[in-house]
Amino acid sequence: MTTACVIIIGNEILSGRTQDINLNWLAKSLNDIGVRLKEARVVPDSEAAIVGAVNGCRKLYDYVFITGGIGPTHDDITTACVASAFGVKVLRDGEAERRLRAHYTADMINEARLRMADIPEGATLIDNPVSAAPGYIMENVYVMAGVPKIMQAMFDGIRHQLQGGIPLISHTLSAYVTEGSIADELTKIQRRYPEVDIGSYPFIRNQKLGVSIVLRAEPSPALEIATQEVGVLLAKFSDVMEEA
Amino acid sequence: MTTACVIIIGNEILSGRTQDINLNWLAKSLNDIGVRLKEARVVPDSEAAIVGAVNGCRKLYDYVFITGGIGPTHDDITTACVASAFGVKVLRDGEAERRLRAHYTADMINEARLRMADIPEGATLIDNPVSAAPGYIMENVYVMAGVPKIMQAMFDGIRHQLQGGIPLISHTLSAYVTEGSIADELTKIQRRYPEVDIGSYPFIRNQKLGVSIVLRAEPSPALEIATQEVGVLLAKFSDVMEEA
Repeated sequence: MTTACVIIIGNEILSGRTQDINLNWLAKSLNDIGVRLKEARVVPDSEAAIVGAVNGCRKLYDYVFITGGIGPTHDDITTACVASAFGVKVLRDGEAERRLRAHYTADMINEARLRMADIPEGATLIDNPVSAAPGYIMENVYVMAGVPKIMQAMFDGIRHQLQGGIPLISHTLSAYVTEGSIADELTKIQRRYPEVDIGSYPFIRNQKLGVSIVLRAEPSPALEIATQEVGVLLAKFSDVMEEA
Repeated sequence: MTTACVIIIGNEILSGRTQDINLNWLAKSLNDIGVRLKEARVVPDSEAAIVGAVNGCRKLYDYVFITGGIGPTHDDITTACVASAFGVKVLRDGEAERRLRAHYTADMINEARLRMADIPEGATLIDNPVSAAPGYIMENVYVMAGVPKIMQAMFDGIRHQLQGGIPLISHTLSAYVTEGSIADELTKIQRRYPEVDIGSYPFIRNQKLGVSIVLRAEPSPALEIATQEVGVLLAKFSDVMEEA
């Protein structure tokens, strides 16, 4: 099983100013290629916090994806922190500088913008088709922009390099029944099909409590049979809605 | 400074099935009472991961808020994990059981539902005005439901107990200029007003790159003067939008 962790650098997420959407997008994208996202962390723009998260996660997971903090302003400290985590220097990358000089007019090129060509020693570039300033890969750590459209374009450019596995597929059955009514029978289904990950997620819709049962596994007869059994269980209490 | 961490228990967040909104709501709510959210973690429904996160975070921060995993189904393992993290037993709480029996009709009460009255030894209850099953407080760890409406109602019930500080206020100025044009001058403003946390967040709107400068501090003349200076800086390049 290939595993991954996402580290989101961002005071603006922790202050509540911004609703993060990168985690959800990356979670879906990783799942699509059979990489299991096992953890996500949101850390502030603090060197100790970022270095600690990078070093904590890069040993635990096959891939670490970092979003945010690679721009030209004073609060963009991700690159210095990643270099520190790996014990290497930050060096100006010739190819990255060439891309920036090609993207900006001569009067726009300044030292601040050129700092976006500085990457940790030994890293390789991730293309940025939106605004030129690249991300980079340092061993198993992928550093990308925080702006969703740029992050997505960067990820799409390196997606084919990632070694995943068989993507999990999931079936979701929902009904207006509360979890307590089905809990014991659901446990029995889970025990019969340990290779299927069965999650139970209560919701409130139209002022009514209900539950979505999500069954996730590699494509298999067990997944289909377990889903049928959950459907029969839910149907004892309410109409069953199949959901994407 | 009072600090906090949020731990979101949820395979459904990590699989991408669900877009988390609890973190953003808690971030804003904590900011409102002067508690600084310093970290957030999303961890899977795994005992090792949850126990590790709880024990890692409860020593680092004044408050830890956990959402999710306290229902009656097999995948609700938060309570067992919190008890394990503190080295205490899980016990049935008499008051919690009374509330569940008052909420459900006699034919709905079953062992699965009563398990929602099991809390770590020494914990105190957090009211659940939506669906009765309580959250709880174990030392500095606050355990709440994952369903947003229930989590919010639980938090609103304990909000007055939290010891915060002076809430930070923030001013946001946005303009269609890219960060590199203002980075050096912005660094100078940050250096002149170190007590103001100045963040620079690029965005794409109407196919155009722009930047939001967010200035955060306790209410102070420095915050107002720094904001004026940022406004003057941005106005050299573009119209300036004041944003909430």
